[in-house]
Amino acid sequence: MQTLFHCPGTCSLASLIALEYAGADYTVHKVDLSRNEQRSADFLVLNPNGRVPALKSERGVITETPAILLYIAQSYPAAALAPLADPFALAQVQAFNSYICSTLHVAHAHRFRGSRWADDPAAIEAMQRKVPQSVGACFALIEAQLRPDAWVFGDQPGISDFYLFTVAQWLEGDGVDPAAYPKVIALRERVRALPAAQKALAV
Amino acid sequence: MQTLFHCPGTCSLASLIALEYAGADYTVHKVDLSRNEQRSADFLVLNPNGRVPALKSERGVITETPAILLYIAQSYPAAALAPLADPFALAQVQAFNSYICSTLHVAHAHRFRGSRWADDPAAIEAMQRKVPQSVGACFALIEAQLRPDAWVFGDQPGISDFYLFTVAQWLEGDGVDPAAYPKVIALRERVRALPAAQKALAV
Repeated sequence: MQTLFHCPGTCSLASLIALEYAGADYTVHKVDLSRNEQRSADFLVLNPNGRVPALKSERGVITETPAILLYIAQSYPAAALAPLADPFALAQVQAFNSYICSTLHVAHAHRFRGSRWADDPAAIEAMQRKVPQSVGACFALIEAQLRPDAWVFGDQPGISDFYLFTVAQWLEGDGVDPAAYPKVIALRERVRALPAAQKALAV
Repeated sequence: MQTLFHCPGTCSLASLIALEYAGADYTVHKVDLSRNEQRSADFLVLNPNGRVPALKSERGVITETPAILLYIAQSYPAAALAPLADPFALAQVQAFNSYICSTLHVAHAHRFRGSRWADDPAAIEAMQRKVPQSVGACFALIEAQLRPDAWVFGDQPGISDFYLFTVAQWLEGDGVDPAAYPKVIALRERVRALPAAQKALAV
């Protein structure tokens, strides 16, 4: 049995959908970020970085969404969540996921987490003002790379679809006009219709 | 034959060391960030994100350091650069690399690349002021996780060692006191002594 430490509305949704889609045996432990539970002593033992997601298995804890997603894909190969047998194709998936975590998610984080990178309240406000532009630029790059009416890679749902779906939840809240990214929005709807996504969103 | 698009002093050093250590057949194409070549039309065709590294192979281009590193590890399994046969152990490597790219490198980037996240010059200066603290906090987390006198994972050099070595080059420039992180510094020296690192640094 494994436990996913998850907070609804955050990027841990991607790992939750992957576990559910793969038919994994798991439980969910909710972490309430509004109460700062991710900074509690108990949670910091699991993830000293103080962030969700964290996946606790019998062998130990895995952190960081791209790592958890690949681990789930490798642990449940029958779900075909990533092109595990083709290093080049897998590298495309990993590059996509890495871009989301290191550039898109980071751009988004300047809306609520500016205090990570500056102390001056005026600077934090200046960061918030740029979020629509910086997040929009990330989605423009992704939009250009998506194929119409298709999953992000291959011909069935995979870990990049679940990750893009998750961060695309934030578009409107970040002040980005979704109409500018029709392929992203179509992908978002395509994933939302999956039973695994429905179940994950209901947690 | 594959080509690594590399700029000395940047995170593309990690991929260069990995290629060299693995005994790969490759050439280096230098990208001069001081001339903004990463934003040239030619380079944006390779990587629309306008960043190094990019690894061009016969099948196409791979971007993002964690993706390139895993691809090299998978392409040259004899070099034993990652625990490819053990999904949990590989997830630890991937989590470590993902933390570097999405948190540590991002903290560092607020020193030179603040204009990604704010337009106000005072805000950009406020970001620069916090870099010693935010980068230092990342290295403190890594320091706590390293074993003394050992590689980051396992008993031989791997992709996480090359990546940590690369970002640890920036400690002094970021205003972080290296004396606070003796295991990081020992690892930095350990990697620097490898012929592959010596050759990569000389490019």
